[in-house]
Amino acid sequence: MSKLPRDLTALVDPKSIAVIGASNEPYKFGGRPIRYMREAKFAGPIYPIHPRDKEIQGLKAYADIRDVGQPIDMAIITIPAPGVADVVDACAEAGVKSCVIFSSGFSEVGGEAHEWQERISATAARSGLLVLGPNCLGTLTPKGWAIGTFSTIFDHGWPVPGNLTIMTQSGAVGGHVLVAARERGLGIRTWVATGNESDVDVADCIAFGATDPETKVIAAYMEGCKHPERLIAALKMARDAGKPVICMKVGSSEVGAAAAATHTASLAGADAVFDAVFRQYGVYRAHSLDEMMNVAGAALVSPLPKGRRLGIVTVSGGAGVMAADAAANLGLEVPELPAVAQKAVKDALPYAAARNPVDVTATATNEFHLLQQGLEAMLSHGNVDMTVIFLSTVGFSPRIMEGLSEIFPAIRKKYPDAIMAVSMMCTPENRRKFEDNGYLVIEDLNDAVEILAALTQIRESLERPDSSDGLELPGVLSHIPAGSLNEAEAAGLLAESGLQFPAIHVATNASEAEAAARRIDGPVAMKVLSGAIQHKSDIGGVRLNVTADMAAEAYAGIMNSVGNHEPNTPLDGVLVAPMAPKGVETIIGVQNDPVFGPVVMFGLGGVFVEVLKDVTFRVAPFNEAEAHRMIRELKGLPLLQGARGAEPVDLDDLARTLSKVSVYAAAQGDQFTSIDINPYVALPKGGVALDAVIVPKG
Amino acid sequence: MSKLPRDLTALVDPKSIAVIGASNEPYKFGGRPIRYMREAKFAGPIYPIHPRDKEIQGLKAYADIRDVGQPIDMAIITIPAPGVADVVDACAEAGVKSCVIFSSGFSEVGGEAHEWQERISATAARSGLLVLGPNCLGTLTPKGWAIGTFSTIFDHGWPVPGNLTIMTQSGAVGGHVLVAARERGLGIRTWVATGNESDVDVADCIAFGATDPETKVIAAYMEGCKHPERLIAALKMARDAGKPVICMKVGSSEVGAAAAATHTASLAGADAVFDAVFRQYGVYRAHSLDEMMNVAGAALVSPLPKGRRLGIVTVSGGAGVMAADAAANLGLEVPELPAVAQKAVKDALPYAAARNPVDVTATATNEFHLLQQGLEAMLSHGNVDMTVIFLSTVGFSPRIMEGLSEIFPAIRKKYPDAIMAVSMMCTPENRRKFEDNGYLVIEDLNDAVEILAALTQIRESLERPDSSDGLELPGVLSHIPAGSLNEAEAAGLLAESGLQFPAIHVATNASEAEAAARRIDGPVAMKVLSGAIQHKSDIGGVRLNVTADMAAEAYAGIMNSVGNHEPNTPLDGVLVAPMAPKGVETIIGVQNDPVFGPVVMFGLGGVFVEVLKDVTFRVAPFNEAEAHRMIRELKGLPLLQGARGAEPVDLDDLARTLSKVSVYAAAQGDQFTSIDINPYVALPKGGVALDAVIVPKG
Repeated sequence: MSKLPRDLTALVDPKSIAVIGASNEPYKFGGRPIRYMREAKFAGPIYPIHPRDKEIQGLKAYADIRDVGQPIDMAIITIPAPGVADVVDACAEAGVKSCVIFSSGFSEVGGEAHEWQERISATAARSGLLVLGPNCLGTLTPKGWAIGTFSTIFDHGWPVPGNLTIMTQSGAVGGHVLVAARERGLGIRTWVATGNESDVDVADCIAFGATDPETKVIAAYMEGCKHPERLIAALKMARDAGKPVICMKVGSSEVGAAAAATHTASLAGADAVFDAVFRQYGVYRAHSLDEMMNVAGAALVSPLPKGRRLGIVTVSGGAGVMAADAAANLGLEVPELPAVAQKAVKDALPYAAARNPVDVTATATNEFHLLQQGLEAMLSHGNVDMTVIFLSTVGFSPRIMEGLSEIFPAIRKKYPDAIMAVSMMCTPENRRKFEDNGYLVIEDLNDAVEILAALTQIRESLERPDSSDGLELPGVLSHIPAGSLNEAEAAGLLAESGLQFPAIHVATNASEAEAAARRIDGPVAMKVLSGAIQHKSDIGGVRLNVTADMAAEAYAGIMNSVGNHEPNTPLDGVLVAPMAPKGVETIIGVQNDPVFGPVVMFGLGGVFVEVLKDVTFRVAPFNEAEAHRMIRELKGLPLLQGARGAEPVDLDDLARTLSKVSVYAAAQGDQFTSIDINPYVALPKGGVALDAVIVPKG
Repeated sequence: MSKLPRDLTALVDPKSIAVIGASNEPYKFGGRPIRYMREAKFAGPIYPIHPRDKEIQGLKAYADIRDVGQPIDMAIITIPAPGVADVVDACAEAGVKSCVIFSSGFSEVGGEAHEWQERISATAARSGLLVLGPNCLGTLTPKGWAIGTFSTIFDHGWPVPGNLTIMTQSGAVGGHVLVAARERGLGIRTWVATGNESDVDVADCIAFGATDPETKVIAAYMEGCKHPERLIAALKMARDAGKPVICMKVGSSEVGAAAAATHTASLAGADAVFDAVFRQYGVYRAHSLDEMMNVAGAALVSPLPKGRRLGIVTVSGGAGVMAADAAANLGLEVPELPAVAQKAVKDALPYAAARNPVDVTATATNEFHLLQQGLEAMLSHGNVDMTVIFLSTVGFSPRIMEGLSEIFPAIRKKYPDAIMAVSMMCTPENRRKFEDNGYLVIEDLNDAVEILAALTQIRESLERPDSSDGLELPGVLSHIPAGSLNEAEAAGLLAESGLQFPAIHVATNASEAEAAARRIDGPVAMKVLSGAIQHKSDIGGVRLNVTADMAAEAYAGIMNSVGNHEPNTPLDGVLVAPMAPKGVETIIGVQNDPVFGPVVMFGLGGVFVEVLKDVTFRVAPFNEAEAHRMIRELKGLPLLQGARGAEPVDLDDLARTLSKVSVYAAAQGDQFTSIDINPYVALPKGGVALDAVIVPKG
């Protein structure tokens, strides 16, 4: 695959556009882009291509793209699927820079049609031609009105140019989101619906947004991903560029994933892994299209809060309580105002609430200065990072809007950098008055607090160093042999990652077992050694608290019992190790995900993993800081922090261990299917792996 | 307090209205109701009361309410607080049936003003006068236009009459919600903002809605509750009447609760207990005003789904996945269509998805019959309880709306009872076209699925028998003595509830201990007995697995060790009991909540309660069916159902035990502060309480 970022200029800002399969009918797919661009006054030349017609919609038409004889940045292709690959070849031959293929009937139907798409991919790879689609809704860039889409949005309104880059894999969702942006008044830098992604994919579009000076925020709708390493690289670019990426990814449920699998031609990958990637690479994951567009819209116009401290100013005590509840749910702080500010509020209105939430009561809708005084107390003294202002239905009242007409602009002037969200019901005109003064306007109060919390989360993501920063790469690692590995072999290999194991001895007869036990201080644990046995305890393969005097007998007992249960399984002897210290049992696992490669899972032992599914994931490799974030996501975290009177465990060791395992897994990813370290016992100082399984590849 | 339901006709449908403190200024509080009612053409007489003026806003004015000499259903009072109590007395004397007191400055400011409010309460109780407020925004009934409010909503639009009864404790929130209802086109039966609740309270309003033939749905905004037994009685009435109650209760967070405490004059009560009451009595708890109004609006016009099976029909594969994800999150099922229906879909469009979600693709926005075919396949064969239809931005497109104009009415005609929610962006006119045909229209797809899930939950709540149905009342119970109780005494008392304890023996010397141990089969557990000792293990007060031969020595050891640690604590001897059987440790607790009385808590032992706070509450008493629902709310439920290869515990015994404890607690509520049964060991058959603490009242 091509390196990122690719130059998408010919798709995003084409100066000359051909339409292959152009139509005189202005409502047909091949007629729409021509009609739209002429209505919108696209400045460049449009070349209709048609086998017979000499003129289309009043423009000179050509029989073949190769007849045009002029530079062509973009060719829109709307002919039936069987002919498309040939036409793409012709485009490459004619020096066209990009193709947008509306036509459907390719990989999504399979068989021969899948091969047509493969041919298109090959042409793109060979020639450097950018290909969008097939089976896609195309592109749109309002600045200049390059309209490479047959979306019907223009039948009921035009989007406005701006700084939001939108990419969606689904055309229908793409059209929907485009209208949603228009209805919210969000300015679009460019909009790309990628369809079957024979060439240009979601990663290309995100990387474009990351490097494009006119893009401020990137919104992406995804169903799956074919080239995860490119997706990750693109997300890193966006974060490096300080640009928020807000993503809606579908398929989190079983039925949803099944529906997605039938819907997309690409492998979906486990949703939990996507979620991990989003956390790791600073993507804000939205859970509805509404949320995606609301957060993108806010990020587009608002600075990002520097911290989590929320000021609440309302005209209703109840609304103050609601906002405080919402803030608590979302992890925002609602700090008490300092005494001086509380006094200022109380001086203005004795029965106002002054602590934060500040409630200047409905009286403020008659005595407007109260709102100003409450807000100024908050903004001057509150030391908050953002403020939500509840104005109820004020935006419907001409009288109150008139009364407030000077206050809100004055506040903005005095506090130019304050992040202020106004929650109110209002007319579109009154909404604009507030927005023009740099206020976010969000009707529902809970939504307003959620959007501020989202901006906070985005700021934290953007400020965070990359999760691969400062990673220590492993030295030369032993090859993981094929076939089954016993515990001692697995431990030997994993020790190269830096993972701590107890002193392990392998005994192949009773006297070796006794000798090993004598070398160990205190009673020992003894376990049968065999790469073929999963559940050692169930067949008498484990003895705990064995003294040196009993070790020989224990050896015989283990071999006997296991031999009786599994007469045909080769046994490699018995592992002799010190008894485990008391600590918190955790589980570290690595699965080689078909899409994302090695993915590290972490959880607490016992009910936490088995009953509560309290686990967290990251794509390998990652550094200690990322591992710390991973650990903090567990619901069982208090147990590691010393709940129930216990000593807290060594979280730094745990994070270091997770990071080391992730580095090992990334380095050895082509050699194993899964790794299980269960349990890894986290101790007040350090920690120790008590069992390890590696399932080699194949 | 008065019995429910009270006749609120004089507040809700007053035929004659006086305004005490009436004003000629149409924008003053005392002027607004008169102006509003004259604009809206209230049919009954309006009597302005003013000490000097003879005419107000063109109406004959009276110096005193007692001078009117005509029947008066409602007197609005807008004079300053110090004079209000006298005026309320005058109203009672004049035979006025209800008062609405706008004036503020009563209990919410405290001191002398609190006594004024007490006087008003006393007058109401003595005379039977209905009093709303003080410090309230009043009432409104659009049918007939009785306007007992100074809300400014009428400055920018009139609500419409209908079947939604709204009550809010906060005036500002009340006004907000009233506008929200108007903007959604929801018809209002009556709207009441209760303010300080000196007399008429939230329970009265809910009970009114429950018994009022014109009320179909009740929406309530609450901050606290003074008379919980009345609230519960009112909620029962609403459920008995089959009327949905949708409630937004604030103060779920610590900061929120603190803000609520300063804001309301009433005791809030723990939010978790309110939550329990809502679950128990079938209230749908909304978490934002938007959600409350959306769900109330849907319940107002839609039948309630009979089950949890959701059909999904879309013009976008991605949207289908989104809807399926949302359904899974909310516990709705998305059943696969039967083969015959899948064939019908595929026959219409070979590349449609036919399984459910049914995706007729964006092609359906050109070939409209596809939508009809997809929908008919779902509605005729899908065996679903409700259907969500994603139409993207269709509602903005005149061409597509024209194309669909016959299809959706025809579908409705053919399937008159089908519950169908359409998710699309649209103009208000196009929204109305769908709504007029009985479709719910909800812009965001996730919101649409959430609202259908809410309707499902409401139906389930309404169908559920009362949680007190079939409760077995306890016989005569022993009095709980004051002072501290030891474990044996607590067990003796609790055994009267039917709670199972092991055979317990109390030994007051070593030989009694030995004798007790001999009577028990197998080794025994021995614990020091003292009502004054909480943590017996820490001071050597517990010995486990003691054989009869060792029992005498163990007795001495326990008394010695405890005596050394707590030389001045009186000891009652040692409890001797069989060793506990293996099972799942649970915790049953009862707290006497200051608002709601005895509240039963249930959780699993160990990390579940201590680390994860995985507990559930119900107000006592409740039956076994309610206890089963309580158990099913635990995240750790799989552990009771036999996770990790264990045998499932006896859930029926557990539910029976919880119900019995709740009945006991309800019966003895005035005699104890808390009860703790920790652990109650749930077994494959039955269960057993291994420790019990009762803290008597006082």
